[in-house]
Amino acid sequence: MHILVAYDVKTETVEGRRRLRKVAQQCLNYGQRVQYSVFECQVNEMTLYKLQTALEAIVEPDEDSIRIYHVNPSKTWVKGIDRYVDFDEPLIF
Amino acid sequence: MHILVAYDVKTETVEGRRRLRKVAQQCLNYGQRVQYSVFECQVNEMTLYKLQTALEAIVEPDEDSIRIYHVNPSKTWVKGIDRYVDFDEPLIF
Repeated sequence: MHILVAYDVKTETVEGRRRLRKVAQQCLNYGQRVQYSVFECQVNEMTLYKLQTALEAIVEPDEDSIRIYHVNPSKTWVKGIDRYVDFDEPLIF
Repeated sequence: MHILVAYDVKTETVEGRRRLRKVAQQCLNYGQRVQYSVFECQVNEMTLYKLQTALEAIVEPDEDSIRIYHVNPSKTWVKGIDRYVDFDEPLIF
């Protein structure tokens, strides 16, 4: 299943940036960064639970906000800089 | 249909913050802000097209990134600060 992780953190503080890096490390196990604090991941029930547990341990509940959405990837609309790499597409050299 | 708008902009510049405000104004016509640069909106085909057209006119394509996702709102997972107000829920005074 395709999910989106959106993480709102105070990046003015060293602590906030450190937490964002840790969230990024967790999400990059399952997918890729598409914006500064937005990640698209491919998970199943088990890895979703693992990711949620790991993220919950990182996030500062009264300062940060983390949201996970189940998305329909075929309907995603993008304008401007697009960092998304579609690994399912054939690699052409 | 329930959509999520994620807007990645350079908020260090006055111009960037101005564009974020304009994007926020457009999105707030159809929904609410759930994170600093993430909005949840309720749209149909026509209002989605109107919103996309308006956002495209605001975004600086070689500096910003804007992504619209179709999401399943019943599966959203949230930890930390939750700004979302569910207008469908009964208001109890």
